[in-house]
Parts: sequence; C-alpha cells; structure tokens
Amino acid sequence: MLKEGDVVAGVDVGGTTVKIGFFSPEGRMLHAFEIVTRTEDAGAYILPDIAEAIKRELPVCGKTYEDLKGIGLDVPGPVDSAGTIYRAVNIGWGVFSIKEEMEKLTNVPVAAGNDATVAALGEVWKGCAKDCDDFLLLTLGTGIGGGIVTGGKILTGATGAGGEIGHFCLEEIDEACTCGCRGCFEQFCSATGFVRITRKLLSETNEVSILREAPIDSKEIFAAAAKGDALANEAIHLYGHYLGKGIAVLCSILNPEVVALGGGVSKAGEQLIDLLRPSFEAHVFHACRDVSFRIATLGNDAGMYGSAKLILDLISN
Amino acid sequence: MLKEGDVVAGVDVGGTTVKIGFFSPEGRMLHAFEIVTRTEDAGAYILPDIAEAIKRELPVCGKTYEDLKGIGLDVPGPVDSAGTIYRAVNIGWGVFSIKEEMEKLTNVPVAAGNDATVAALGEVWKGCAKDCDDFLLLTLGTGIGGGIVTGGKILTGATGAGGEIGHFCLEEIDEACTCGCRGCFEQFCSATGFVRITRKLLSETNEVSILREAPIDSKEIFAAAAKGDALANEAIHLYGHYLGKGIAVLCSILNPEVVALGGGVSKAGEQLIDLLRPSFEAHVFHACRDVSFRIATLGNDAGMYGSAKLILDLISN
Repeated sequence: MLKEGDVVAGVDVGGTTVKIGFFSPEGRMLHAFEIVTRTEDAGAYILPDIAEAIKRELPVCGKTYEDLKGIGLDVPGPVDSAGTIYRAVNIGWGVFSIKEEMEKLTNVPVAAGNDATVAALGEVWKGCAKDCDDFLLLTLGTGIGGGIVTGGKILTGATGAGGEIGHFCLEEIDEACTCGCRGCFEQFCSATGFVRITRKLLSETNEVSILREAPIDSKEIFAAAAKGDALANEAIHLYGHYLGKGIAVLCSILNPEVVALGGGVSKAGEQLIDLLRPSFEAHVFHACRDVSFRIATLGNDAGMYGSAKLILDLISN
Repeated sequence: MLKEGDVVAGVDVGGTTVKIGFFSPEGRMLHAFEIVTRTEDAGAYILPDIAEAIKRELPVCGKTYEDLKGIGLDVPGPVDSAGTIYRAVNIGWGVFSIKEEMEKLTNVPVAAGNDATVAALGEVWKGCAKDCDDFLLLTLGTGIGGGIVTGGKILTGATGAGGEIGHFCLEEIDEACTCGCRGCFEQFCSATGFVRITRKLLSETNEVSILREAPIDSKEIFAAAAKGDALANEAIHLYGHYLGKGIAVLCSILNPEVVALGGGVSKAGEQLIDLLRPSFEAHVFHACRDVSFRIATLGNDAGMYGSAKLILDLISN
C-alpha cells in the first residue's frame, strides 16, 4: 500500500525529448523536467538515461530513492499489457520488454503503455473527463493518435495496437496512406489530412482564395475561414464532415460517454466541435449518440499524468 | 468463495423462448431447458417466469435452492455494467434494473448483459477461443450482432451499446438501414444484407442465374455458387469483400487476437473465411493484421454459457 510521502514517476518518451514528472499518490505533480532522447545505437541509452535522471532529480522535490514506489512510461509505439514494445521506429526500438529492462535498471515496479493510450488515461484521471469510465481521446496532429478507455481500463489489444484509431478505412481513395492502405481516417482528419483535403478542394476549382499562397497548415485554414475566405470555409466544413463521420464509426462500436479532441487541430476549440457535430449525428448509431464532446486539457503533460496513473493502478492492485 | 456442488444459472432471454442452463463453477452444463417468453403486458412475466422455472428445475440435476449461488442473464438489448437495460423492443421491456428486479425475485446475486456480448464471453470461456483475452464475435443473422472482449472483460460501453457492431458506416449508400442511417455494416453483411447486395447484382445485369427464381436466402446463394452459377459466385465474393473490409475496420480499432463468426451465414464455414481474407488483408492496419479467424462453436448455447460466466466472474471477485 502507498503512504503519504511516497512518489511515482510518470515518463513520456518522445522522439526528441523525454518528459519526466514526479507525482504524489493522489496525483499532484511535484516536479517535472525534460531530458534529450538519445536515439543513437537503436535507442540503447534511452532507458539508462531515464533511470539516471530520476535518481538525480528526486531530491529536487525533497524525495529520496526509497520514496520512489514505481515508474510508468509511455512510448511512441504499440505496447502490450505485459509491457512489451512491438517496435518504436522514431526512437530506434525493436521488440523487447520495457517493463523487465527498466525494472532491472531501477529495482522498482514498472508499467509501460502506448503514448496516445496513456494520454487518454491521463485525461480521465486529471484532465477533461475526470472519472469517466468510457472515454475516447483523439489527438489530431501529423497523424491521428488515439486512446480508448473502456470500463475504466485502457484498451490495449492483443499486440498493443488497440486504440490506434488513425488507420481504419473511412472512405476508399486512390492515394495511399503512410501505412500502405487507401482511405484511412488519418488521411482525412489528421492535420496533414486536413491540408490534403483542402488542397484537393483548391485543385477542383479556380475560385479565388488566400490559401492559394502555399504552403498552408490547419491553423491558416481556420484563420482564412475566419477572414471570410469562402474556399477555406468550405474546407473547414468538409473537415468537420469527415471528422464527425469518423468519430461516429468509433462511437457506434465503442459507445463512449466522452470524446475528447487534442493535438494541433484541436486548438480550433469549440468551433471544431460545432463543425463535426452535424456529421456525427447523421452517422452515429442512435444508441451511441449521447456523447459529450470536449477539448483535451492536459496538453503535453497528458503522457506524464497517464504514465503515473498506469503505475499507480499496477501497484495499488 | 464457491465450493464443489454449488451451481449457477445461465439464462438466455430471446424473443420467443428463454434458454436456462445450470452450470458447475468449472463450467460443466448440468441441465438445460427452455420456457416460452411471455412478451404480453410489456414483458412483465418474463423475470417471474424465469425465477419460478429455476426453482422448479433445480432438483432435476440433483440440486437444491441453497446450492444456487447466482443467476446470469442475457437479453436482446443494451445493458450497462450495472445491469440496467435500455429498452428491449422484442420483449417489450423499457428502462429498468434487471439486476435489482431479479435479485428481489430470487434472493441470489444477479448479473445481466447484452445477448451478443455475453455470447462472446461464452465463446472465450468454453467455445472457439478458450482463454483468449482480446476477442471479437460477429453473429451474421437477420442483423449483425457483436460481442467484444478486451483485456479479458466484455466491452459494455457507457449505455450498454458497446460492441453493437452492426451500425458503423461501412460505405454510404442511398438506402436507409433499419436504424435510420445509410451504409451500415449490417446493410452489407447480415444475412439480409447479403441478399440485398445479391439482388442489386442481379438487377444490374441480364446474365442468366438460378437466383432469379426468388425468394433467395444466404444458404441458397452459397449453394448456387457451388453449382457453378457465375452470378452467385460473384455475389459470394462481393459479400466476402464487404465482410473483410468491415472486420478490418473493427480490427484496426480493437486489435483482437481471434475473430469468430457465428449466426446463419457462418454455416458456410471455412469457405467464408477464405472469401473475406483477401479484403481483410487489403484493408487492415498492419499492426492489427495477425488475427486468427474461427467459426463460433457454441451455437445457440453461447448465451447460456456466457451468462453463467458473467455471474461467476461477479461472485468470484
């Protein structure tokens, strides 16, 4: 059992930096810092660097190594429920047990999970959907990251790819996705997908638009629409159509209570929810329609919070 | 804790009959029988009839009421994790707690769930996918029923509609589904959907086919294809295309280890798996590709087995 004064580490391993936070058992963040992700030699230094940084920084928040009761880590790749990673291309990792390696290095219990999935756990613990047991998080960035919480637990899947929601077929198209399939949700609704469908709109007409001064990104498309650019306005409505339809597919299968949007495109805020809702309602199964849409609130800290919760759940059971 | 000689009841409530089985804690079926589902007066007699039948039949397998440690029920409608049903149109029920009502009637612990979801639990307990923690069951009948097991637990969703997999949008079409949406998985891949897409094929050509002697059903389409009917052969391949694509959507989100097919269309057996596999592989996210396809084995008993497991899980925790 955990007692007052105990601490756990929540670690978010990214392609460029590793974010490390120390948390009280109730989830108060005591101290957070970053180290560089050294991806050389197939990522061999990443876990030792994290272990060393944790030891070094604990005193900053008045803690000793004896106070440390466990470490949670999230990584950019599929991780199964036993803590085995199945390749994380960004950081050079192949297949191995993160849990075993890190426990050897630190002598404390370790839990590991996929970054987007763990971020969802963070949001239901301390973010936009506190205590929600049936939750879906979409992070709309370069790709679409996804995290599913069902019955209060993260959905991991057989090989850690559960909740990798960017690659179901939304509508078949000729252009191939980075994954090799044609018509993935991500090809329409990631930030990159948003630019793709906007460029396609531009190519289909000669209409005047400030978006013709390339390059464009999702922020500029929203800004142009706000300035009254008709084509940009059409683009954001088309984006809302695809996003609402994609979320309807997910909700018709998973029946969540809350759906949260994070990542770059979610900076559009409530406007994004207004844009997707008509299409969501047209496509969702009636029994799954009663969904509360939110914008994720933990931002870049979601991974640290979720990782801390992952290890707290493990050592509390 | 359960001891030798204890018994639980697994009850499968259908629109016409209620199937009741008595099970040992290890899952041996000791006795099974059916009663009529009395749907009059908004289904008011169904639970009292079940309670009485259980009391009456226990001695048939040498048990007393004191041996009965709990009752699991599945019903044709969404049931949340607390045992509340959200309308079951077939049997006249509105919204109420099945668990509370049945516990009042019987004085033993009760658990309740959706029929298709509970059938999936039966298949991972005693059927085609023993001990599989990440499992998907599709029952291809008049509609498509679905059950999802993830991390060893059934996926219930916020209002009991999790795993109702027949109503995500597979491809938008003009024709409306029974649910009101257009292009649901069920419109292509239920037994009814199979006949629909076959009739559409027939209407698009003048080619000779024995299927033109209406009415047709899925069994006849397979039989005609086996006899060398070219149009029937085209129809079963088209069905395989849609089924493979739909299952790919589900697997790309849920990452199951085993996918099982049940219901009327699944009587086509391994041929059905051969037909869907090319389309499945073309549409599935690579990280979710490693799926074992099976034909469900418990048939009409899946609900009784799953219901028994549902209550055993509850009283063992």
